[in-house]
Amino acid sequence: MINLYTWATPNGRKISIMLEELGLDYAVSPVDLGKREQFSAHFNAISPNNKIPAIVDSGPDGDPVVIFESGAILTYLAEKYGQFLAPQGQARYSAFEWLHWQTSGLGPMLGQLGFFAVRSEEKAPLAIARFTEEADRLLTVMEQQLSNQAYLAGEDYSIADIACYPWALAATSYLKDVLKASLATKPSLQRWLTLVGERPAVKRGMAIPKL
Amino acid sequence: MINLYTWATPNGRKISIMLEELGLDYAVSPVDLGKREQFSAHFNAISPNNKIPAIVDSGPDGDPVVIFESGAILTYLAEKYGQFLAPQGQARYSAFEWLHWQTSGLGPMLGQLGFFAVRSEEKAPLAIARFTEEADRLLTVMEQQLSNQAYLAGEDYSIADIACYPWALAATSYLKDVLKASLATKPSLQRWLTLVGERPAVKRGMAIPKL
Repeated sequence: MINLYTWATPNGRKISIMLEELGLDYAVSPVDLGKREQFSAHFNAISPNNKIPAIVDSGPDGDPVVIFESGAILTYLAEKYGQFLAPQGQARYSAFEWLHWQTSGLGPMLGQLGFFAVRSEEKAPLAIARFTEEADRLLTVMEQQLSNQAYLAGEDYSIADIACYPWALAATSYLKDVLKASLATKPSLQRWLTLVGERPAVKRGMAIPKL
Repeated sequence: MINLYTWATPNGRKISIMLEELGLDYAVSPVDLGKREQFSAHFNAISPNNKIPAIVDSGPDGDPVVIFESGAILTYLAEKYGQFLAPQGQARYSAFEWLHWQTSGLGPMLGQLGFFAVRSEEKAPLAIARFTEEADRLLTVMEQQLSNQAYLAGEDYSIADIACYPWALAATSYLKDVLKASLATKPSLQRWLTLVGERPAVKRGMAIPKL
Protein backbone atom coordinates (compact mmCIF):
# COMPACT_ATOMS: atom_id res chain seq x y z
CA MET A 1 0.00 0.00 0.00
CA ILE A 2 1.12 3.54 -0.75
CA ASN A 3 1.86 5.88 2.14
CA LEU A 4 1.43 9.54 1.15
CA TYR A 5 3.36 12.17 3.11
CA THR A 6 1.51 15.42 2.54
CA TRP A 7 0.08 18.64 3.89
CA ALA A 8 -2.75 21.04 2.93
CA THR A 9 -0.89 22.73 0.05
CA PRO A 10 -1.27 22.74 -3.76
CA ASN A 11 1.73 20.45 -4.21
CA GLY A 12 0.37 17.94 -1.71
CA ARG A 13 -3.10 17.97 -3.28
CA LYS A 14 -1.74 17.01 -6.70
CA ILE A 15 -0.91 13.58 -5.33
CA SER A 16 -4.06 13.00 -3.28
CA ILE A 17 -6.08 13.91 -6.42
CA MET A 18 -4.06 11.41 -8.48
CA LEU A 19 -4.48 8.64 -5.89
CA GLU A 20 -8.24 9.32 -5.75
CA GLU A 21 -8.45 9.32 -9.56
CA LEU A 22 -6.74 5.92 -9.60
CA GLY A 23 -9.13 4.63 -6.93
CA LEU A 24 -6.28 3.36 -4.80
CA ASP A 25 -6.35 2.48 -1.16
CA TYR A 26 -3.63 4.59 0.49
CA ALA A 27 -2.50 5.82 3.88
CA VAL A 28 -1.95 9.51 4.64
CA SER A 29 0.89 10.72 6.88
CA PRO A 30 0.39 14.45 7.54
CA VAL A 31 3.66 16.42 7.72
CA ASP A 32 2.81 19.58 9.68
CA LEU A 33 4.75 22.38 8.00
CA GLY A 34 3.72 24.78 10.80
CA LYS A 35 5.60 22.54 13.24
CA ARG A 36 8.52 22.17 10.76
CA GLU A 37 8.00 18.41 10.68
CA GLN A 38 9.45 18.36 7.14
CA PHE A 39 12.88 18.79 8.75
CA SER A 40 12.57 15.70 10.98
CA ALA A 41 15.19 12.98 10.50
CA HIS A 42 12.42 10.51 9.60
CA PHE A 43 11.06 12.66 6.80
CA ASN A 44 14.50 13.78 5.58
CA ALA A 45 15.33 10.14 4.87
CA ILE A 46 12.28 9.99 2.58
CA SER A 47 12.50 13.47 1.07
CA PRO A 48 16.08 14.86 1.17
CA ASN A 49 14.82 18.22 -0.13
CA ASN A 50 12.59 18.47 2.99
CA LYS A 51 9.44 19.17 1.02
CA ILE A 52 6.11 17.44 0.71
CA PRO A 53 4.70 15.50 -1.07
CA ALA A 54 6.54 12.18 -0.96
CA ILE A 55 5.35 8.59 -1.21
CA VAL A 56 6.55 5.20 -0.07
CA ASP A 57 5.16 2.32 -2.13
CA SER A 58 5.75 -1.44 -2.03
CA GLY A 59 8.03 -2.33 -4.95
CA PRO A 60 7.64 -5.50 -7.04
CA ASP A 61 10.58 -7.21 -5.27
CA GLY A 62 9.39 -6.25 -1.78
CA ASP A 63 11.78 -3.31 -1.46
CA PRO A 64 10.07 0.02 -0.86
CA VAL A 65 9.93 2.55 -3.71
CA VAL A 66 10.48 6.02 -2.22
CA ILE A 67 9.75 9.11 -4.33
CA PHE A 68 9.70 12.86 -3.64
CA GLU A 69 8.90 15.76 -6.04
CA SER A 70 5.25 15.89 -7.11
CA GLY A 71 6.14 15.73 -10.83
CA ALA A 72 8.13 12.52 -10.32
CA ILE A 73 5.37 10.97 -8.19
CA LEU A 74 2.69 11.77 -10.81
CA THR A 75 4.88 10.21 -13.51
CA TYR A 76 5.47 7.09 -11.38
CA LEU A 77 1.78 6.58 -10.64
CA ALA A 78 0.73 7.27 -14.26
CA GLU A 79 3.23 4.72 -15.54
CA LYS A 80 2.51 2.11 -12.87
CA TYR A 81 -1.26 2.19 -13.46
CA GLY A 82 -1.26 3.17 -17.16
CA GLN A 83 -3.57 6.14 -16.73
CA PHE A 84 -3.57 9.92 -17.37
CA LEU A 85 -0.39 9.75 -19.49
CA ALA A 86 -0.26 8.40 -23.06
CA PRO A 87 2.28 5.58 -23.48
CA GLN A 88 3.97 7.28 -26.47
CA GLY A 89 3.77 9.97 -29.14
CA GLN A 90 2.99 13.68 -29.06
CA ALA A 91 0.22 13.23 -26.44
CA ARG A 92 2.73 11.76 -23.97
CA TYR A 93 5.23 14.60 -24.40
CA SER A 94 2.55 17.29 -24.41
CA ALA A 95 1.56 16.03 -20.96
CA PHE A 96 5.19 16.17 -19.87
CA GLU A 97 5.46 19.72 -21.33
CA TRP A 98 2.59 21.05 -19.25
CA LEU A 99 3.62 19.03 -16.20
CA HIS A 100 7.04 20.70 -16.30
CA TRP A 101 5.44 24.04 -17.16
CA GLN A 102 3.55 23.73 -13.87
CA THR A 103 6.39 22.47 -11.69
CA SER A 104 8.94 24.94 -13.10
CA GLY A 105 6.71 27.96 -13.75
CA LEU A 106 3.17 28.19 -12.45
CA GLY A 107 3.99 26.62 -9.06
CA PRO A 108 7.22 28.44 -8.16
CA MET A 109 6.01 31.83 -9.48
CA LEU A 110 2.62 31.72 -7.71
CA GLY A 111 4.47 30.48 -4.64
CA GLN A 112 6.79 33.49 -4.67
CA LEU A 113 3.85 35.81 -5.33
CA GLY A 114 2.12 34.37 -2.27
CA PHE A 115 5.19 35.06 -0.15
CA PHE A 116 5.86 38.62 -1.31
CA ALA A 117 2.27 39.84 -1.80
CA VAL A 118 0.41 37.99 0.97
CA ARG A 119 2.57 36.35 3.66
CA SER A 120 5.52 38.70 4.13
CA GLU A 121 5.02 41.63 6.50
CA GLU A 122 8.00 43.44 5.02
CA LYS A 123 7.07 44.58 1.52
CA ALA A 124 9.38 44.59 -1.52
CA PRO A 125 7.49 46.42 -4.31
CA LEU A 126 9.98 45.28 -6.97
CA ALA A 127 9.34 41.62 -6.12
CA ILE A 128 5.55 42.05 -5.89
CA ALA A 129 5.51 43.71 -9.32
CA ARG A 130 7.77 41.05 -10.84
CA PHE A 131 5.81 38.04 -9.62
CA THR A 132 2.41 39.63 -10.29
CA GLU A 133 3.48 40.24 -13.89
CA GLU A 134 4.88 36.74 -14.28
CA ALA A 135 1.75 35.16 -12.75
CA ASP A 136 -0.41 37.13 -15.20
CA ARG A 137 1.81 36.03 -18.09
CA LEU A 138 1.55 32.37 -17.06
CA LEU A 139 -2.24 32.53 -16.62
CA THR A 140 -2.47 34.13 -20.07
CA VAL A 141 -0.45 31.26 -21.57
CA MET A 142 -2.79 28.81 -19.83
CA GLU A 143 -5.87 30.68 -21.11
CA GLN A 144 -4.52 30.58 -24.67
CA GLN A 145 -3.85 26.84 -24.45
CA LEU A 146 -7.28 26.08 -22.98
CA SER A 147 -9.08 28.21 -25.59
CA ASN A 148 -8.07 25.65 -28.24
CA GLN A 149 -8.76 22.34 -26.48
CA ALA A 150 -10.52 20.78 -23.50
CA TYR A 151 -7.45 20.04 -21.39
CA LEU A 152 -3.90 21.32 -21.15
CA ALA A 153 -2.25 18.54 -23.14
CA GLY A 154 -5.09 17.98 -25.63
CA GLU A 155 -8.55 16.43 -25.53
CA ASP A 156 -7.68 14.01 -22.72
CA TYR A 157 -7.43 14.74 -19.00
CA SER A 158 -3.84 14.05 -17.91
CA ILE A 159 -1.30 14.44 -15.11
CA ALA A 160 -0.72 17.97 -16.48
CA ASP A 161 -4.26 18.98 -15.47
CA ILE A 162 -3.88 17.27 -12.10
CA ALA A 163 -0.64 19.21 -11.49
CA CYS A 164 -2.06 22.57 -12.56
CA TYR A 165 -5.47 22.41 -10.89
CA PRO A 166 -4.57 23.08 -7.21
CA TRP A 167 -2.27 25.94 -8.26
CA ALA A 168 -4.80 27.54 -10.62
CA LEU A 169 -7.33 27.25 -7.81
CA ALA A 170 -4.90 29.04 -5.48
CA ALA A 171 -4.79 31.89 -8.04
CA THR A 172 -8.57 32.25 -7.70
CA SER A 173 -8.69 31.98 -3.89
CA TYR A 174 -5.56 32.60 -1.80
CA LEU A 175 -4.16 34.99 -4.46
CA LYS A 176 -7.41 36.41 -5.79
CA ASP A 177 -6.89 39.95 -4.48
CA VAL A 178 -3.63 40.22 -6.41
CA LEU A 179 -4.78 38.40 -9.58
CA LYS A 180 -8.39 39.63 -9.84
CA ALA A 181 -7.79 41.71 -12.98
CA SER A 182 -5.92 38.89 -14.71
CA LEU A 183 -8.55 36.26 -13.86
CA ALA A 184 -11.41 38.47 -15.14
CA THR A 185 -10.13 37.99 -18.70
CA LYS A 186 -9.70 34.21 -18.59
CA PRO A 187 -12.98 32.49 -19.64
CA SER A 188 -11.30 29.31 -20.90
CA LEU A 189 -9.36 28.96 -17.65
CA GLN A 190 -12.62 29.39 -15.70
CA ARG A 191 -14.31 26.71 -17.89
CA TRP A 192 -11.44 24.29 -17.26
CA LEU A 193 -11.44 25.03 -13.48
CA THR A 194 -15.12 24.05 -13.36
CA LEU A 195 -14.63 21.00 -15.60
CA VAL A 196 -11.74 19.64 -13.50
CA GLY A 197 -13.13 20.82 -10.15
CA GLU A 198 -16.39 18.91 -10.63
CA ARG A 199 -14.63 15.55 -10.89
CA PRO A 200 -15.48 13.56 -7.73
CA ALA A 201 -11.88 12.38 -7.33
CA VAL A 202 -10.65 15.99 -7.49
CA LYS A 203 -13.11 17.00 -4.77
CA ARG A 204 -11.96 14.10 -2.58
CA GLY A 205 -8.28 14.76 -3.27
CA MET A 206 -8.59 18.45 -2.41
CA ALA A 207 -9.92 17.46 1.07
CA ILE A 208 -6.72 15.55 1.94
CA PRO A 209 -5.19 15.61 4.49
CA LYS A 210 -8.18 15.55 6.83
CA LEU A 211 -7.02 17.62 9.79
CA MET B 1 16.62 15.56 -38.06
CA ILE B 2 16.07 17.48 -34.82
CA ASN B 3 15.98 21.27 -34.93
CA LEU B 4 16.96 22.80 -31.55
CA TYR B 5 15.68 26.29 -30.73
CA THR B 6 18.03 27.60 -28.08
CA TRP B 7 20.12 30.42 -26.67
CA ALA B 8 23.22 30.77 -24.49
CA THR B 9 21.48 30.00 -21.17
CA PRO B 10 21.56 27.09 -18.68
CA ASN B 11 18.15 25.81 -19.86
CA GLY B 12 19.24 25.86 -23.50
CA ARG B 13 22.53 24.10 -22.72
CA LYS B 14 20.75 21.14 -21.07
CA ILE B 15 19.45 20.12 -24.47
CA SER B 16 22.60 20.72 -26.49
CA ILE B 17 24.48 18.61 -23.91
CA MET B 18 21.89 15.82 -24.26
CA LEU B 19 22.04 15.90 -28.08
CA GLU B 20 25.84 15.78 -27.95
CA GLU B 21 25.75 12.89 -25.45
CA LEU B 22 23.47 10.98 -27.84
CA GLY B 23 25.82 11.73 -30.76
CA LEU B 24 22.96 13.01 -32.90
CA ASP B 25 23.17 15.18 -35.97
CA TYR B 26 21.00 18.24 -35.24
CA ALA B 27 20.38 21.77 -36.46
CA VAL B 28 20.55 24.80 -34.16
CA SER B 29 18.16 27.75 -34.52
CA PRO B 30 19.36 30.52 -32.20
CA VAL B 31 16.52 32.50 -30.56
CA ASP B 32 18.07 35.83 -29.58
CA LEU B 33 16.53 36.72 -26.22
CA GLY B 34 18.19 40.15 -26.35
CA LYS B 35 16.15 40.88 -29.48
CA ARG B 36 13.02 39.31 -27.89
CA GLU B 37 12.85 36.76 -30.70
CA GLN B 38 11.12 34.34 -28.27
CA PHE B 39 7.98 36.41 -28.74
CA SER B 40 7.90 36.05 -32.56
CA ALA B 41 4.82 34.41 -34.07
CA HIS B 42 7.02 31.66 -35.55
CA PHE B 43 8.52 30.71 -32.17
CA ASN B 44 5.25 31.13 -30.27
CA ALA B 45 3.73 28.40 -32.47
CA ILE B 46 6.53 26.06 -31.31
CA SER B 47 6.79 27.20 -27.69
CA PRO B 48 3.53 28.79 -26.43
CA ASN B 49 5.26 29.74 -23.16
CA ASN B 50 7.75 31.85 -25.22
CA LYS B 51 10.79 30.28 -23.63
CA ILE B 52 13.73 28.35 -24.97
CA PRO B 53 14.62 25.53 -25.38
CA ALA B 54 12.24 23.80 -27.79
CA ILE B 55 12.77 21.10 -30.39
CA VAL B 56 11.07 20.01 -33.59
CA ASP B 57 11.77 16.37 -34.51
CA SER B 58 10.53 14.15 -37.33
CA GLY B 59 7.90 11.80 -35.89
CA PRO B 60 7.56 8.14 -36.93
CA ASP B 61 4.52 8.89 -39.12
CA GLY B 62 6.11 11.89 -40.82
CA ASP B 63 4.32 14.44 -38.62
CA PRO B 64 6.65 16.71 -36.67
CA VAL B 65 7.00 16.20 -32.92
CA VAL B 66 7.19 19.61 -31.25
CA ILE B 67 8.29 19.89 -27.60
CA PHE B 68 9.05 22.79 -25.27
CA GLU B 69 10.16 22.70 -21.58
CA SER B 70 13.66 21.35 -21.06
CA GLY B 71 12.47 18.62 -18.67
CA ALA B 72 9.99 17.29 -21.24
CA ILE B 73 12.61 17.41 -24.03
CA LEU B 74 15.15 15.50 -21.92
CA THR B 75 12.51 12.87 -21.12
CA TYR B 76 11.56 12.56 -24.82
CA LEU B 77 15.15 12.13 -25.98
CA ALA B 78 16.02 9.70 -23.17
CA GLU B 79 13.01 7.54 -24.02
CA LYS B 80 13.47 7.74 -27.81
CA TYR B 81 17.13 6.69 -27.66
CA GLY B 82 17.01 4.56 -24.50
CA GLN B 83 19.84 6.36 -22.73
CA PHE B 84 20.45 8.28 -19.47
CA LEU B 85 17.11 7.16 -17.95
CA ALA B 86 16.48 3.65 -16.59
CA PRO B 87 13.46 1.97 -18.23
CA GLN B 88 11.87 1.13 -14.87
CA GLY B 89 12.31 0.83 -11.12
CA GLN B 90 13.73 3.11 -8.44
CA ALA B 91 16.58 4.29 -10.71
CA ARG B 92 14.05 5.65 -13.25
CA TYR B 93 12.08 7.58 -10.65
CA SER B 94 15.18 8.84 -8.84
CA ALA B 95 16.22 10.43 -12.15
CA PHE B 96 12.75 12.00 -12.46
CA GLU B 97 13.00 13.21 -8.82
CA TRP B 98 16.21 15.10 -9.41
CA LEU B 99 15.10 16.28 -12.87
CA HIS B 100 12.03 17.88 -11.27
CA TRP B 101 14.11 19.09 -8.35
CA GLN B 102 16.20 21.00 -10.89
CA THR B 103 13.36 22.34 -13.04
CA SER B 104 11.18 23.32 -10.06
CA GLY B 105 13.82 24.36 -7.55
CA LEU B 106 17.46 24.87 -8.52
CA GLY B 107 16.66 26.55 -11.86
CA PRO B 108 13.88 28.95 -10.82
CA MET B 109 15.56 29.91 -7.54
CA LEU B 110 19.01 30.57 -9.04
CA GLY B 111 17.21 32.40 -11.86
CA GLN B 112 15.48 34.71 -9.39
CA LEU B 113 18.71 35.20 -7.46
CA GLY B 114 20.38 36.26 -10.71
CA PHE B 115 17.67 38.81 -11.34
CA PHE B 116 17.55 40.33 -7.85
CA ALA B 117 21.24 40.13 -6.90
CA VAL B 118 22.95 40.69 -10.26
CA ARG B 119 20.78 42.03 -13.09
CA SER B 120 18.32 44.40 -11.41
CA GLU B 121 19.53 47.96 -10.83
CA GLU B 122 16.79 48.55 -8.25
CA LYS B 123 17.64 46.50 -5.16
CA ALA B 124 15.15 44.63 -2.97
CA PRO B 125 17.10 43.38 0.09
CA LEU B 126 14.21 41.11 1.18
CA ALA B 127 14.30 39.29 -2.17
CA ILE B 128 18.09 39.07 -2.30
CA ALA B 129 18.15 37.56 1.21
CA ARG B 130 15.33 35.13 0.40
CA PHE B 131 16.84 33.76 -2.81
CA THR B 132 20.40 33.66 -1.45
CA GLU B 133 19.15 31.57 1.47
CA GLU B 134 17.13 29.26 -0.79
CA ALA B 135 20.06 28.85 -3.23
CA ASP B 136 22.32 27.91 -0.31
CA ARG B 137 19.72 25.43 0.95
CA LEU B 138 19.41 23.79 -2.49
CA LEU B 139 23.19 23.57 -2.98
CA THR B 140 23.42 21.98 0.49
CA VAL B 141 20.80 19.37 -0.51
CA MET B 142 22.82 18.67 -3.67
CA GLU B 143 26.05 18.39 -1.67
CA GLN B 144 24.43 15.90 0.69
CA GLN B 145 23.13 13.80 -2.20
CA LEU B 146 26.48 13.79 -4.00
CA SER B 147 28.40 12.89 -0.85
CA ASN B 148 26.76 9.46 -0.92
CA GLN B 149 26.99 8.53 -4.61
CA ALA B 150 28.70 9.43 -7.88
CA TYR B 151 25.71 11.08 -9.57
CA LEU B 152 22.47 12.72 -8.48
CA ALA B 153 20.21 9.74 -9.13
CA GLY B 154 22.67 7.02 -8.13
CA GLU B 155 25.83 5.49 -9.62
CA ASP B 156 24.79 6.19 -13.23
CA TYR B 157 24.96 9.48 -15.12
CA SER B 158 21.41 10.48 -16.06
CA ILE B 159 19.21 13.28 -17.41
CA ALA B 160 19.14 14.61 -13.83
CA ASP B 161 22.87 15.38 -14.01
CA ILE B 162 22.48 16.90 -17.49
CA ALA B 163 19.68 19.16 -16.18
CA CYS B 164 21.58 20.27 -13.07
CA TYR B 165 25.04 20.80 -14.57
CA PRO B 166 24.55 24.14 -16.41
CA TRP B 167 22.73 25.59 -13.40
CA ALA B 168 25.30 24.40 -10.86
CA LEU B 169 27.98 25.87 -13.13
CA ALA B 170 26.08 29.20 -13.12
CA ALA B 171 26.26 29.13 -9.31
CA THR B 172 30.08 28.95 -9.56
CA SER B 173 30.44 31.59 -12.27
CA TYR B 174 27.65 34.11 -12.93
CA LEU B 175 26.48 33.90 -9.28
CA LYS B 176 29.84 33.24 -7.61
CA ASP B 177 30.05 36.58 -5.79
CA VAL B 178 26.73 35.88 -4.05
CA LEU B 179 27.28 32.15 -3.42
CA LYS B 180 31.01 32.11 -2.63
CA ALA B 181 30.53 31.19 1.05
CA SER B 182 28.08 28.43 0.23
CA LEU B 183 30.26 26.91 -2.51
CA ALA B 184 33.34 26.87 -0.25
CA THR B 185 31.73 24.12 1.85
CA LYS B 186 30.63 21.84 -1.02
CA PRO B 187 33.47 19.40 -1.87
CA SER B 188 31.16 16.72 -3.29
CA LEU B 189 29.45 19.25 -5.53
CA GLN B 190 32.88 20.40 -6.76
CA ARG B 191 33.90 16.77 -7.44
CA TRP B 192 30.72 16.20 -9.45
CA LEU B 193 31.14 19.49 -11.39
CA THR B 194 34.59 18.32 -12.49
CA LEU B 195 33.39 14.77 -13.27
CA VAL B 196 30.48 15.98 -15.43
CA GLY B 197 32.31 19.00 -16.87
CA GLU B 198 35.15 16.86 -18.22
CA ARG B 199 32.81 14.82 -20.44
CA PRO B 200 33.55 15.74 -24.08
CA ALA B 201 29.82 15.93 -24.91
CA VAL B 202 29.24 18.34 -22.02
CA LYS B 203 32.07 20.58 -23.25
CA ARG B 204 30.62 20.57 -26.78
CA GLY B 205 27.05 21.12 -25.54
CA MET B 206 28.08 24.08 -23.37
CA ALA B 207 29.48 25.81 -26.49
CA ILE B 208 26.07 25.78 -28.26
CA PRO B 209 24.78 28.01 -29.77
CA LYS B 210 27.89 29.18 -31.58
CA LEU B 211 27.37 32.93 -31.93
